[in-house]
Amino acid sequence: MRLTRQSNYAIRTLIYCAVNDPGLSRVADIAKAHGISELFLFKLIKPLVEAGLIETVRGRKGGIKLGRPAEDITLLDTIKLTEESFAMAECFEDGDITCPLVDMCDVNAALREALGAFFEVLDSHTIADLAAKKRSIRQRLGLSYIEIEDVLLAQATN
Amino acid sequence: MRLTRQSNYAIRTLIYCAVNDPGLSRVADIAKAHGISELFLFKLIKPLVEAGLIETVRGRKGGIKLGRPAEDITLLDTIKLTEESFAMAECFEDGDITCPLVDMCDVNAALREALGAFFEVLDSHTIADLAAKKRSIRQRLGLSYIEIEDVLLAQATN
Repeated sequence: MRLTRQSNYAIRTLIYCAVNDPGLSRVADIAKAHGISELFLFKLIKPLVEAGLIETVRGRKGGIKLGRPAEDITLLDTIKLTEESFAMAECFEDGDITCPLVDMCDVNAALREALGAFFEVLDSHTIADLAAKKRSIRQRLGLSYIEIEDVLLAQATN
Repeated sequence: MRLTRQSNYAIRTLIYCAVNDPGLSRVADIAKAHGISELFLFKLIKPLVEAGLIETVRGRKGGIKLGRPAEDITLLDTIKLTEESFAMAECFEDGDITCPLVDMCDVNAALREALGAFFEVLDSHTIADLAAKKRSIRQRLGLSYIEIEDVLLAQATN
């Protein structure tokens, strides 16, 4: 009943990108802010990039950003990509099932119902909600607040 | 997001006891029916005995039985005793927390809310519900149906 490290850091990465929006975020900076290796971060965001939650921009000034608005990315969207399995017991999976009660037991249905309730709550929380305390989160992540103001100013004058 | 083996077999043990009620169940028989060692079963029911969910009767004809009616034991009662931890992320625990956002992040609250919804569903399913298909479950566990009728008959004539 613990989220994987992948889920944990994927959520943090999305929050980082959200508070840094519309700027691009460097993987090296995110890894440093959270004390993890760049390689681990690259690996864990791969499924998020493939699913369109994160977009990569190549080049010297490249980086990553959210692939769609933070309001449209939920915690459920995220962990569905980063959790290995939601099989709560062997009877959730195909393959060898040793339980003699497998076809007459209601535990599976009860666990599925509970998991559904869990998912429903996670689906009601968006990355936008989680990144709402933008100023203080940016400060804690070592992102200056002026930086984003500059980006906005530059955009407005273009 | 997977229940421990302990939870899994604890639930099966309670179902076994429920379908075998009012008879006593032998740990050796339960272990055999589920293909696990008696030692593992003894260890995993220890917290259930301590919490009063299971009662042990000593002696040559001894065994175990439910410590209270199956209607009064929920899935939540069970897994609370057999899951090691419901800490979904490091910020659920005391001790070293490496996340720089720990005191300003709403992920913890969202996960707690989701876990609460998960628990609520598990608390609505009792061992009595799970053991409702008594006849077919008994057959599958190698418990004859006649045996329990005999016990009832013996009780009635006492």
